[in-house]
This record gives sequence, C-alpha cells and structure tokens, in this order.
Amino acid sequence: MSGLSFRDTPRPADAELVRKLAQESGGFSSRDIEIAVELVQERLARGLAASGYHFLFAEEGSDPRGYACYGPIPLTAASWDLYWIAVPKNVQGNGVGRRLMAEVERQAKAFGAKHVYIDTSGRADYARSQAFYKAAGYRLAANLPDFYAPGDAKLIFAKGL
Amino acid sequence: MSGLSFRDTPRPADAELVRKLAQESGGFSSRDIEIAVELVQERLARGLAASGYHFLFAEEGSDPRGYACYGPIPLTAASWDLYWIAVPKNVQGNGVGRRLMAEVERQAKAFGAKHVYIDTSGRADYARSQAFYKAAGYRLAANLPDFYAPGDAKLIFAKGL
Repeated sequence: MSGLSFRDTPRPADAELVRKLAQESGGFSSRDIEIAVELVQERLARGLAASGYHFLFAEEGSDPRGYACYGPIPLTAASWDLYWIAVPKNVQGNGVGRRLMAEVERQAKAFGAKHVYIDTSGRADYARSQAFYKAAGYRLAANLPDFYAPGDAKLIFAKGL
Repeated sequence: MSGLSFRDTPRPADAELVRKLAQESGGFSSRDIEIAVELVQERLARGLAASGYHFLFAEEGSDPRGYACYGPIPLTAASWDLYWIAVPKNVQGNGVGRRLMAEVERQAKAFGAKHVYIDTSGRADYARSQAFYKAAGYRLAANLPDFYAPGDAKLIFAKGL
C-alpha cells in the first residue's frame, strides 16, 4: 500500500463506489449502507458548505481502497463527527484504515477541528471497529446501554486533535 | 395550575409562540431559539411522520404555559430525544415543567419509546436545567468535555420508560 493517495472531491460515480466499499467492508447493515449512499448524493447535490459532508477516498493508482465521511457538528465550536470509515475486507490489515484515519484527522484539523467523535455499536460483532478506534487513539467517552436496541449500546469514541 | 391542558397539534401561530416561550424561559441562546422555531416550521410544512417532530403545548385556558418538542431517534428501535422543553420564567416553580415532562413521557411511551435522552450543556448557567432533569428521574449518562466549546461540555441525560 505504498502508493496510497487521497481524493477529497466526490464524483457522481462515487455513490455506487461508496455502496460497494461499505458492502465489502462487512461492517454495515443494508439500511446503514443506504444512508451512506444518501450522504454522497447530498454532498453531490448541495456541495460541501451546505451539506457539511466531507469525503476522503483512498486510492492505489486507480483502484479504490476505502473511504471516509466526516464533518463539523452543528452548534459546536470545533467538534467534528467521523460518520463513516470503510475499508473492504480484502484490503483490511494493510494499514489503509489507519492511514485514511490519519488523513481525515489532518484535514479536519486544517478546517479547525479540535475534537473528533465516532458513534458505533457496542455489539460484539463491532469488536473489530471498536479495537480499530482504540488503536487509533480514540477513548471510549460514553456508553449508552440499549440505545440502538435491547442489547445494542451506543458507544461514543472521542479524540482530541 | 390546576387547569393545565395539553395540545399536541401545532398551528401556524405556534412558530411565534415557540419563539416567545423559548425567549421567556431564559435558557436558550438566540441561535438555539432560531432552531426551535425552525423545528415547528418543519413540522407544519412536512407533517408528523416526515418531520419526526412531536410537539406538546401546555395551556391554562387559552394562556400558553410552556412547550416541548421530542421525537424518535432514527436508526434506533425505541430511543427518543427530548429536543426542547421550555417554560417561561414567570411560570417556573409551579410544577408546569414537571407535568409537561410527564405528559411527554406518557405520549412517547404510547408511541413505543423505551428510552428518552436529553442533550444539554454542562455550563454552570445550565445548572437549573440539569437539576430539573435529575429531579424528573433522568440520570447523567454521558459527559463529553469541551464538546460545544472550550469549557462547555455536552451532557446526555437518560431515562428508561
């Protein structure tokens, strides 16, 4: 993955690319994936300022390797949400997610972000995501039991930049 | 306040009523108040199902005494947010807020809510709101330091119904 590059301007074809990357990452429900696609569509339709959705696509040459979607949290001075970060299963383990996360943080910081938050599920099948966020320096800032459904807590991870 | 009644269907005049009640409650910034008004407008324009915004107006005869705005949290089975609860300063201390909160919980529960969440500021000038939520049976479920701004934490209060 030495030739990894990052692209921050979504193109119309990225709606389907996001669907593919999210599906192949194995971490999202079909409803989650529809929302991920809607965020790209909203960004394409309304632009960066009005939508508030920043994107970052990781590519190796012309091959997509993952993507992230993030943006400022309304009514906060410098708090940002990382909405999505997805790397296909067959790419995982090569440091792509880590480099994508670092680039998200670098760009968010350049836009003024001082805190990044990530909401995720406390379910056991999200253990890999939880471990990834911790390894990236995020602390578990909140745990809301049964938030999503019985037995399915909402975890909020946080990191200062 | 023995003659308190509750109305759950917003009318066009309620946009200005919400502005007045929020201003007179003393707990919200001017930006907060604009958002409170926008939520009524969105509810009036799009209806209950599409907007997701439930309203409850407390009235004594024809005199407004306070209001609340709440609704289901997308992608959750039974978690609801209480977005706003406002009682004018000259009405506070008479149990209106407590009765309005109880009616919100009763109606939300009838719609299937099992958990209610309230986001508020950790700032000292929100101490009255924080005490009100605790007295109503809410526990402090999360504290995110510096979330809104330096020194301005986000507190999440939660209650099971």
